[in-house]
Amino acid sequence: MAFRVREARPQDCGDIVRLIKELASYEKSTDQVHMTEHVLKRDGFGDEKFYHCFVADAEVPLETDDSDDNHLKVIAYALFFYAYSTWDGRMMYLEDIYVTPEFRGKGIGTALIKRILEVGLEKECQRIHLAVLDWNTSAAEFYKSKGFQDITERDGWHALQLNREKMEDFVKNH
Amino acid sequence: MAFRVREARPQDCGDIVRLIKELASYEKSTDQVHMTEHVLKRDGFGDEKFYHCFVADAEVPLETDDSDDNHLKVIAYALFFYAYSTWDGRMMYLEDIYVTPEFRGKGIGTALIKRILEVGLEKECQRIHLAVLDWNTSAAEFYKSKGFQDITERDGWHALQLNREKMEDFVKNH
Repeated sequence: MAFRVREARPQDCGDIVRLIKELASYEKSTDQVHMTEHVLKRDGFGDEKFYHCFVADAEVPLETDDSDDNHLKVIAYALFFYAYSTWDGRMMYLEDIYVTPEFRGKGIGTALIKRILEVGLEKECQRIHLAVLDWNTSAAEFYKSKGFQDITERDGWHALQLNREKMEDFVKNH
Repeated sequence: MAFRVREARPQDCGDIVRLIKELASYEKSTDQVHMTEHVLKRDGFGDEKFYHCFVADAEVPLETDDSDDNHLKVIAYALFFYAYSTWDGRMMYLEDIYVTPEFRGKGIGTALIKRILEVGLEKECQRIHLAVLDWNTSAAEFYKSKGFQDITERDGWHALQLNREKMEDFVKNH
């Protein structure tokens, strides 16, 4: 099975949103996805880039006829952004990596991670971070097998968030 | 006591590194700070911006003479970067906020947070994230009093990281 990892293009955004929703469905959170093709295109391919994305294409049979013709389909993506540490400088944050189920076990996820790490090393990034849910042990085990360390367990780091409504309240009340 | 919150300028980077080291000393981690004025300047004020920063100036007596003259000194900073959620789009991440001890309790930290949230609301950010160490209960209580939720406790999110050495190993071995 041939696949190819490449930088995402604006015209991939529809496919990426489809895959974002597939992943959310695995995480039992489809109702929490508010992403649209328009927003994803604006934020990744405008003057100010809020994220970077690689995708993998695979050859799949055409769905519309009975011929043996294949076409390329986007079957995986990895989306990251640059983060910053006041101790160590440039870092990366891997927001999502997803391979559609029937293409798993073929090294596509690993190829995507490798490509992102190559970019990060070139950019002098000192670390890559990501977050996993504690019930998603298969993801945690996968990353740990690649050398990732759980710094919530090791050092006691907790993630805190303030949502937009509360951001507005804060600005109003201070 | 008069203070002023403003966007950081390249010539503030020396002062910001001084404050980064003060904060690390509180966190018992001075030996882990590898940041320099040169790197901070390059990463915040070059073509590609890896972070954004606000500082607070306060009037302090001149250290070099006995006159009553005051001068402005950078006594606090807040450094953030933009993050991205595939579910909700633009977010912010507050990497550090620090007020030098003798200027605490005067609303400087709150003024810095307010300014950052204003920027985030303008940019259509849906959330702001930060991380705290579990032993730093005073920081956690402060943020919770402002409406922040601990999503490590609430949802079980764990932070994982891969350092540069292991990033290099991954690329070599795959």
